Amino acid sequence: MSQPLNVSVDAMGGDAGPGIVVAALARSAQRHPNVRFLLHGDEAVLKPLFARRAKLLERVEIRHAAERVRMEEKPSQALRRGRNTSMWHAIESVKNGEAQVMISAGNTGALMAMSMFHLGTIEGIDRPAIAALWPTKRGQSVVLDVGANVECDAQQLVDFAVMGEAFARAILGLERPTVGILNVGAEDMKGHDAVKGAAQILRRVNLPIEFCGFVEGDDISEGAVDVIVTDGFTGNIALKTAEGTAKLVVHFLRSALRRSLFGRIGALFASGALNILRRKLDPRASNGGIFLGLNGVVVKSHGGTDALGFASALDMAIDMAKAEVIPKIVADHAAATPALAPAGAAVS
Amino acid sequence: MSQPLNVSVDAMGGDAGPGIVVAALARSAQRHPNVRFLLHGDEAVLKPLFARRAKLLERVEIRHAAERVRMEEKPSQALRRGRNTSMWHAIESVKNGEAQVMISAGNTGALMAMSMFHLGTIEGIDRPAIAALWPTKRGQSVVLDVGANVECDAQQLVDFAVMGEAFARAILGLERPTVGILNVGAEDMKGHDAVKGAAQILRRVNLPIEFCGFVEGDDISEGAVDVIVTDGFTGNIALKTAEGTAKLVVHFLRSALRRSLFGRIGALFASGALNILRRKLDPRASNGGIFLGLNGVVVKSHGGTDALGFASALDMAIDMAKAEVIPKIVADHAAATPALAPAGAAVS
Repeated sequence: MSQPLNVSVDAMGGDAGPGIVVAALARSAQRHPNVRFLLHGDEAVLKPLFARRAKLLERVEIRHAAERVRMEEKPSQALRRGRNTSMWHAIESVKNGEAQVMISAGNTGALMAMSMFHLGTIEGIDRPAIAALWPTKRGQSVVLDVGANVECDAQQLVDFAVMGEAFARAILGLERPTVGILNVGAEDMKGHDAVKGAAQILRRVNLPIEFCGFVEGDDISEGAVDVIVTDGFTGNIALKTAEGTAKLVVHFLRSALRRSLFGRIGALFASGALNILRRKLDPRASNGGIFLGLNGVVVKSHGGTDALGFASALDMAIDMAKAEVIPKIVADHAAATPALAPAGAAVS
Repeated sequence: MSQPLNVSVDAMGGDAGPGIVVAALARSAQRHPNVRFLLHGDEAVLKPLFARRAKLLERVEIRHAAERVRMEEKPSQALRRGRNTSMWHAIESVKNGEAQVMISAGNTGALMAMSMFHLGTIEGIDRPAIAALWPTKRGQSVVLDVGANVECDAQQLVDFAVMGEAFARAILGLERPTVGILNVGAEDMKGHDAVKGAAQILRRVNLPIEFCGFVEGDDISEGAVDVIVTDGFTGNIALKTAEGTAKLVVHFLRSALRRSLFGRIGALFASGALNILRRKLDPRASNGGIFLGLNGVVVKSHGGTDALGFASALDMAIDMAKAEVIPKIVADHAAATPALAPAGAAVS
């Protein structure tokens, strides 16, 4: 039997409201018999949702929070006035050790600001990044940052490489994940100062990282490397562009099949295969951005997700806690720090 | 009968060599009976390629150039030593008025540097951008910059908006194309200084542009706006990420169909529909980046393309010349300049 695990949940985040969160807990509770949930939110709203879920309620503790962070709120504002919100309380549960991991489908900026305020960053890490799992021809890759930092310097990108590599080892079970920096070309001279500087550091210093240099946009889906490092502006746009493109291709496929009788017959015969494709491309299956660089595990579910999507983000949060990713990142980053010191003494 | 048109072609660019270029000329010559070609390259290599194409040779003038720009050459180096290259000569033909448009599948950076050297930029435009046509649910959109400028300030993004809008009117035949700036969110507070500054300028000044604010990565394929403005780093990565994702989805579809007998039967019935999909996603169909902002039309074909891809880039170049895009951009930018003057006097 594995260790008991407490998951702290912000019930009030996301567009769909707490109904999908409770439905997701029901799924997750079945899959993870040893997990308990601290559910933060408006008691008057949450309690009725358990009216027919007495068994689930045995594993859920409802913690009342009178307020919620609104989706359009500025991070600084949420931080100032947010002490009574479900998000604030949910993060506090990780800070004070009651829970090992926190999850929310709420306002990303506010979640990052509150997480940094409560949990702090790992020693030597300037700013956390949001990591995403990306389906590829060879399985899955880790892409970070997908939205926390719109501008990044070379040192931050190097931090992302160290964190992403530790994450890939822990979550993808790879012994020696390969790491690449996203750029507009593979040649050394390509790109702006931040990516060139980060590549120089990663090539020169003696880190235990399998650094493969620059990769381009189409290398992500190829699975050319296991960890793709980029700034949060580029990463966010790449991720959403990929989601949009996958939808577009399915749209083209559907309208092509509908255009002829043979197409419609073919679609009937191939309905099993088309369902496999649908599941494979379901954005809910890889829902969840992981905040890396904090002294604690925080997972952000997509704001527009449903119960299935929230449940898969919950799965990832539980995997994260079980794999003890944070201690691994702390150890790796501490080991890398002498090599990364500005003096650059530890060049290989 | 339309005006006769001369197209200047760099025969020596690209990975595949001049064989695919000559095959592309053959296709294009059939489609455009009023077009003539100036073909720049090594005579000893080119002449034999016309051994069985006597009829085509009547419309092609081979111009000997002893050297070629190598794919890995630095732009500055190519500019210094490139006076005898096919690329140099091909651009010169536009400069001296012998041709109305130039096309090359060679080194992008060198092509940009030589084009700027020979043709210069349109008055008021600091740096040219590379525009691409992007397939969407609603047809096609224009995305720029997809690779010329890895870093852009607000003023450059505004220039791209003006140029992209004129291009969309000329090439997509839209009366009033909508324009958006690519960002990590639709809210005003999102993004870095360049995108926020560009949006402010476009909102405040009285340009005859249908500016719709910020769009996100998934809005491109939706066709949410007709013109998507971004810096060359983000645009290049978005474009290649989309190409990679389209390939990945087709890969998933193919392996799902192969997994079962029903899937294979379905694929047989639907083969017509699957061929439509294949053609729709064929990157060769929208091959060709257009350099916007120069005093002349220069089109860059993908370096790894085949004859079909080069021919479709040729089509685009010919369309560009016929639509008289450059005079339109010059007029639009001149009209916009008072409104864009740093004093900001012409606020609406």
